Amino acid sequence: MNGEILALGTELLMGELTDTNSSYIASRLPHLGISVQHISLIRDDLEDLTASLELALSRSDIIFTTGGLGPTHDDITREAIGRVLNEDLKIDPVLIEDLKKWFRQRGMPMSDANNKQAMRIPSAEAIPNSQGTAPGWWVEKNGKVIVAMPGPPGELYNIWEHKVAPRLKASISGQVIMTRNIKTINIGESALAEKILPFTGTGNPYLGIYAKRDGVHLRIISSASTEAKARKMIAPIEKGIIQSVGAYVWGFDEDTPEKVAAESLLNNGYSLAVMESCTGGLLSSTITDVPGSSKFFKGGIVAYSNEAKIESGVPKELIEKYGAISEETAKLMAKAICIQMNADVGIGITGVAGPSEQEGKPLGTVCLGISVKGKQYSEELLLPPRREVVKTRATATALILLRRKLMQA
Amino acid sequence: MNGEILALGTELLMGELTDTNSSYIASRLPHLGISVQHISLIRDDLEDLTASLELALSRSDIIFTTGGLGPTHDDITREAIGRVLNEDLKIDPVLIEDLKKWFRQRGMPMSDANNKQAMRIPSAEAIPNSQGTAPGWWVEKNGKVIVAMPGPPGELYNIWEHKVAPRLKASISGQVIMTRNIKTINIGESALAEKILPFTGTGNPYLGIYAKRDGVHLRIISSASTEAKARKMIAPIEKGIIQSVGAYVWGFDEDTPEKVAAESLLNNGYSLAVMESCTGGLLSSTITDVPGSSKFFKGGIVAYSNEAKIESGVPKELIEKYGAISEETAKLMAKAICIQMNADVGIGITGVAGPSEQEGKPLGTVCLGISVKGKQYSEELLLPPRREVVKTRATATALILLRRKLMQA
Repeated sequence: MNGEILALGTELLMGELTDTNSSYIASRLPHLGISVQHISLIRDDLEDLTASLELALSRSDIIFTTGGLGPTHDDITREAIGRVLNEDLKIDPVLIEDLKKWFRQRGMPMSDANNKQAMRIPSAEAIPNSQGTAPGWWVEKNGKVIVAMPGPPGELYNIWEHKVAPRLKASISGQVIMTRNIKTINIGESALAEKILPFTGTGNPYLGIYAKRDGVHLRIISSASTEAKARKMIAPIEKGIIQSVGAYVWGFDEDTPEKVAAESLLNNGYSLAVMESCTGGLLSSTITDVPGSSKFFKGGIVAYSNEAKIESGVPKELIEKYGAISEETAKLMAKAICIQMNADVGIGITGVAGPSEQEGKPLGTVCLGISVKGKQYSEELLLPPRREVVKTRATATALILLRRKLMQA
Repeated sequence: MNGEILALGTELLMGELTDTNSSYIASRLPHLGISVQHISLIRDDLEDLTASLELALSRSDIIFTTGGLGPTHDDITREAIGRVLNEDLKIDPVLIEDLKKWFRQRGMPMSDANNKQAMRIPSAEAIPNSQGTAPGWWVEKNGKVIVAMPGPPGELYNIWEHKVAPRLKASISGQVIMTRNIKTINIGESALAEKILPFTGTGNPYLGIYAKRDGVHLRIISSASTEAKARKMIAPIEKGIIQSVGAYVWGFDEDTPEKVAAESLLNNGYSLAVMESCTGGLLSSTITDVPGSSKFFKGGIVAYSNEAKIESGVPKELIEKYGAISEETAKLMAKAICIQMNADVGIGITGVAGPSEQEGKPLGTVCLGISVKGKQYSEELLLPPRREVVKTRATATALILLRRKLMQA
């Protein structure tokens, strides 16, 4: 089955926003047996969208659109679909009631402009959007399907996961494409590529290698008539990879450093507190991105200066002895925050995020300290010297290191 | 002049890689007087690319391609351009010598596959690529231009900046497109749309409205023969908007909440410390994203529990009296962190990020407190009930509120 994605938004064509919705959708279609042949970015222009929809209907079985469902005159997706299918838009009495309720519950006045969002053509069925005022549309006509979804990524993800993906899964049968992600750290892309050479294939199954913020990922993709058959093709390759580079593997598929760290803490019944310097709060923020993190996370301190570190229980004379950017100080920070916040496990991060070197240590130097029930571990990293890279890579590595130590303990 | 971008790569259509090249190019074209009408992502497939190039030549004056210039059988950009223009590819004696030199200088063997990269059609002029083995192509025929550039972002940026942009600048004289962004907060998209109705236009100048994490943005776009004329068309609309909704405006163009907050703090010579609960460290992390933030940022505490708030100087009896999710407590947090970290300005954030309600306050309730030199201000928000939205919106709003208070003070 051939799929096509149309991403709406003049700001995408002005280069003011990078389109991440298309890759989100595209990455989820192979599993459903839909092969994406075309992705187009379209201006908020009725003529342009109408022409693109016509072309898409002539060559693809199913078309996904994102954006253009808002209340303003720029929002032209509903109108364009109506025009292409030669159907009139009318206000749907159920949708308008839902919309009124949405505004009422929030104590906000509903403006006339919003009426537009309750409109529908006869072939369209509304897809409820619990995160915003714009319902999606599921349109079936002449053997073709158009799925119109909102543009704000949060709304798109939610509607995709809860409404669109389940419906596609139920209605489509054909080739199933399965993927398996294997996530590594502490090994470079080319070194890893050499080690996995015996398993490399460009056909079916396919093995790809991708450098990411949280290490290097390996992705095996196979395609077969059933999920079971596709899985069976992946298994021996996965086994071979684990035998050869298992020591570097920290996770699979949708695993993130914060998810695997949270899992290990919850399994052990441990609480966590952190003291971070060069990551500036990103470590805490990443941990609290995990729903339910309040079960184990006691809190953190962003100790940007030496004074703040000393104030938070790191002995002044030891900072002076070892230097602020040292594995020793990172361990002392992890230990101090455990005591101060009465936590079982602590993380300390200190390093040089920029703009210039510090204590003679080059930009990108980061020291990680982990304290587990009074025992400390540490690691020094040299990361690419860009502020945001230092922050994200140090955060990811600290969480993966914590996971390792908890699994060994 | 109409431009079109074609980004090559099967991995883009598998969703394994997000296409950032197109937005890079698109963001640089308006200033050169090129208006981008279409962006398409294309598989590494000769038929597909040929069809897309034909369509592009029929509707656009200048076409930019990225990717497909490598040495493997997947790299089909050169072949497709030759096919569409009905010209044969031949090895260029100068290019092949350059390529041999490139490999020789690096002490690497050159494989026969690389010969492909020295090929050229008569209408194509090679664009040297100092960062890799794939030269670009500048093709002019029948009044149309095709610029073929490599796919790896580093190579693309380099060739763009040093070769393509200067040549475009020199050769194109025509319409210049200018944009002006006006950023608001505390007013919804549809309410704002109603207020600016008198200034709305879909032609030239164009006024667009976009809901973002840091409020609703208005964008005025104008096109004229010179930069000065284009600016002149924007000025009266901008003036009218400011007169009508100026109270909601917090920034322009590239402004971010953290940048304007940092600017105000530096202008006043004030230091900052923060105590955050539901934002879980994102406030600190956002502040430290600003290069040079160590000049004013003393640090922060992520006080996820009531105990942590009390430990950090918020009186227990007052939390009990007012509740943890209250404007009073937010102000007390801001005040306490100023004292603890010896800062001039403090921010306190407390709220319900989820997964469920707390103290009878619904998910999405956030209270912001600001303390400036001992004087406190506060605000209560009701945000869309999703963890990441609560975190980012609360962070942005707190920084904008801080900016406001510092400008009023």
